[in-house]
Amino acid sequence: MSTATVQRTLLDRAAIEQIVRQIVLQSSGQQNSGQRGAAKPAEPNLVVSISARHCHLTDEHVETLFGPGHKLRPMKDLYQDGFYAAEETVMVVGPKRKMLPTVRVLGPTRPASQVELAFTDGISLGIDLPVRASGKIAGTPGCVLVGPRGVVELKEGVIRAERHVHMHQDHAAYYGVKNGDRMSLRIESTCSVVLQDLLVRADTTSKLEVHIDTDEGNAADLDHATRVELLKQR
Amino acid sequence: MSTATVQRTLLDRAAIEQIVRQIVLQSSGQQNSGQRGAAKPAEPNLVVSISARHCHLTDEHVETLFGPGHKLRPMKDLYQDGFYAAEETVMVVGPKRKMLPTVRVLGPTRPASQVELAFTDGISLGIDLPVRASGKIAGTPGCVLVGPRGVVELKEGVIRAERHVHMHQDHAAYYGVKNGDRMSLRIESTCSVVLQDLLVRADTTSKLEVHIDTDEGNAADLDHATRVELLKQR
Repeated sequence: MSTATVQRTLLDRAAIEQIVRQIVLQSSGQQNSGQRGAAKPAEPNLVVSISARHCHLTDEHVETLFGPGHKLRPMKDLYQDGFYAAEETVMVVGPKRKMLPTVRVLGPTRPASQVELAFTDGISLGIDLPVRASGKIAGTPGCVLVGPRGVVELKEGVIRAERHVHMHQDHAAYYGVKNGDRMSLRIESTCSVVLQDLLVRADTTSKLEVHIDTDEGNAADLDHATRVELLKQR
Repeated sequence: MSTATVQRTLLDRAAIEQIVRQIVLQSSGQQNSGQRGAAKPAEPNLVVSISARHCHLTDEHVETLFGPGHKLRPMKDLYQDGFYAAEETVMVVGPKRKMLPTVRVLGPTRPASQVELAFTDGISLGIDLPVRASGKIAGTPGCVLVGPRGVVELKEGVIRAERHVHMHQDHAAYYGVKNGDRMSLRIESTCSVVLQDLLVRADTTSKLEVHIDTDEGNAADLDHATRVELLKQR
């Protein structure tokens, strides 16, 4: 049924829980039927990435957790230019003495520290996660971060990141959307799913990339997907 | 936007991982627009249940794991008449010495033992789960079950259960579907999802109930859903 060319970029299973899984499906171009004309530009490659649980830290918290003067050490570049998974990990401790021992730090550092978890993680920690766009952490739950050299008590910043799609403004024009709009992602597999209301984050520098979390990726079996479609919502 | 009346039947978080979460949303009746007439029967209550990881056992395996003459002890009735979560749990051991310590047994016993896991569980165990309808276990991975009195090596039977909807034939007639057809479930929440290709299992005894797994429930935040819709697929 689908003539999609499948190109996969999968890390091995052992690394999955700690960094990022990614799938690239070069679509057959069927998905925008009705919008295509002779002058239509080529359909962009759609990268769908699963963000496993991770955290972002301030410079100050990096030093508290890993020692004075410490700087994050990039381990693996992420798909968006300038972003990376760091060598560093922290322990995230929730209420009731539950914890996640190894949560990857992503760089570069940020003005506010933030922990992004899937609901599965939240349940195991005993934290009822709010769904928030990255950076919108006012009033969210906190947690304790434990590093090899120190401890940080976050008063807020533990969220489930709202699913979203990064794109260049040229892609936004291609899809007929603008920054702040909502789109849907259909993942075709043995357990096909449509993820609705993806937040469009369009700017002049980003590559086209959908970010979903591990629950969403697992629900749809993204690893074995045969087709992904990014759709403008009606 | 939605005028749905929400009735929730949620077990406390501590019990979630071991039994079943359930949500009942009495729809406002908007979902079958176009199919409704003066003589249309009232829309049935739609129950959506999250099945956490669990296993089904044969009589023989119950005795091997829990002792000669042992019978499963019902702990909590499930929504479908005659089915229950048992007091008994087993340890599921995968390859590479990874294990899940406490997997609930559901009763009554069956002709073949079967372990139903979410992909999150499969990843943590190191088992690449096939998606199968319950009972269709030929050629699926095996595992080791450990009980208080003995051990069973399953040669096959470890699956991710294909999402499905149980219904009475009267409900099938209401929705215009038949046993073996496929439907979609839309869950409206802060992270709305459409789960496609639910297998219809219609007979003369079942209540209307969708079964999804923990990954699917977490992806859609079913616990905080404001509306669920069961839709005939085009």
